[in-house]
Amino acid sequence: MKIQTECVPCLLKRIVFEAEQSTKDEKLRIKTVQNALRLLAELYDPNVCSATIATKVHKIAYETLGDNDPYKELKYASNKIAQSLVPLVNDLINCSDDPLRIAMLCSIIGNLMDFGIPGASEHPELLDEIFEETFVEDLGHDDTEEIKKILAKSKNVILFTDNCGEIVFDEILCRELKKFNPSIFLTVVVKGEPIISDATIKDAEELEFEEVCDEILTTGCFAIGVDFDKITPMLKKALERADLIICKGMANYEAFSETDYKPIAYLLRAKCTAIANSMSLPLNVNAVKLYQ
Amino acid sequence: MKIQTECVPCLLKRIVFEAEQSTKDEKLRIKTVQNALRLLAELYDPNVCSATIATKVHKIAYETLGDNDPYKELKYASNKIAQSLVPLVNDLINCSDDPLRIAMLCSIIGNLMDFGIPGASEHPELLDEIFEETFVEDLGHDDTEEIKKILAKSKNVILFTDNCGEIVFDEILCRELKKFNPSIFLTVVVKGEPIISDATIKDAEELEFEEVCDEILTTGCFAIGVDFDKITPMLKKALERADLIICKGMANYEAFSETDYKPIAYLLRAKCTAIANSMSLPLNVNAVKLYQ
Repeated sequence: MKIQTECVPCLLKRIVFEAEQSTKDEKLRIKTVQNALRLLAELYDPNVCSATIATKVHKIAYETLGDNDPYKELKYASNKIAQSLVPLVNDLINCSDDPLRIAMLCSIIGNLMDFGIPGASEHPELLDEIFEETFVEDLGHDDTEEIKKILAKSKNVILFTDNCGEIVFDEILCRELKKFNPSIFLTVVVKGEPIISDATIKDAEELEFEEVCDEILTTGCFAIGVDFDKITPMLKKALERADLIICKGMANYEAFSETDYKPIAYLLRAKCTAIANSMSLPLNVNAVKLYQ
Repeated sequence: MKIQTECVPCLLKRIVFEAEQSTKDEKLRIKTVQNALRLLAELYDPNVCSATIATKVHKIAYETLGDNDPYKELKYASNKIAQSLVPLVNDLINCSDDPLRIAMLCSIIGNLMDFGIPGASEHPELLDEIFEETFVEDLGHDDTEEIKKILAKSKNVILFTDNCGEIVFDEILCRELKKFNPSIFLTVVVKGEPIISDATIKDAEELEFEEVCDEILTTGCFAIGVDFDKITPMLKKALERADLIICKGMANYEAFSETDYKPIAYLLRAKCTAIANSMSLPLNVNAVKLYQ
């Protein structure tokens, strides 16, 4: 997705948010916003991918703050609160006659833990309150039947994770993908370096992802979504051999929608009109959308 | 008030909003946001008043759009919906044993018609729905008793209006100010040129403000709030002789808080933490706050 006009205030709002998370030093917060604002003014180009620009703007913010992980505490809290909801998610899946679909829905609800932007949860603790009402909303776009047809004949499946918290439910989704088709080779991808509230290898290891997938790779670098110029040869190969790519969250859509990789299933909450319009979805719906 | 870090995304959000109001031409919208972003990156200085910077950024947006009044339709709709609520406001005032206080509260509710920023109404039509619940919230900060003491011995009072829609209730407030102390000389100030959703002389004339006040002046120029370097000698004199200055809305606070004019009563809805923190108010409260 190319950067939209509305991405400009949204990205800067997140920079203000991460500066506040990182430091109480008002001068440093100001310097961070100033540097990010100046760089964004230089980089803003309607022909460039939103994720590419966001990566660079977050990079200068992190450098100015001298902090390689401003979301550290929020990420920790997100994983904790999500873990407390695992028994509920498992009950919902076990009571369903379509466990894979419910696992997808629950992993999308985790996508609300995307802090510093409108349409997302403001505090990790709120997930507890909003989980059930978001579950009842169900899927606003549902391509799960088509996806199951592809999955049934897939050998290699690759899942790109998104936020902390959400990743706890992604682990359950991995389990259900394997249950649905035990013969798939499942690759899970986390971020190569800490960036916003996204999960890294540390989270995957702590959550023992090796028990639910066959391989854990990283995006290889500091990037919102995926920087395809910097991915490792191993990830490139995994992408090329994949019979199905599953992408969690908006940033992965922003990055992958600029490529030709297919088939891709996007599992996300459409939290802004830029994404909603680009994907032809209503605003603020839980969506499972397949591009093939 | 000096510009705060959070003012940066908020101001750009409003620029995106006004570009969308003004034109369907996507290229022109992009150019507008690009020009505003670049200028803001140049001007951003934590030692400068937020209203001063906002004025310049809106100016370049209007110039790029080639539109001197992007909020024209919204302003018209705001006045209409507010006028439909006048009988309700009059009933509330007439049933109260403190009519001036209720008139102040109602005029603050009108301050929700401040489009394109979080915490405000998204559509004029919503005022109808949110009026009663906002009325029930009452005043979160209430200096009306102190203000009445000053009013009782005032000769010259000056009221700086804010948005369209809101101005319909300001007219009722003027009537109540005159009822409270019929001997005051009441000056009402509107904007010198159309800027965001603020009221201009056209609105004051259409609403027949001459029937409720003694004098109508304008700020004399294109400015968020007031540009004190550009006010007319007449407005300057009116300010200097005023025994009480009443300021509606956040932008007037942003501008007047950088001056020594006193006593000032701010009547506003604290819709952002920048204003709320600066005024030591909770977020999203209706406030009547006196500085003397």
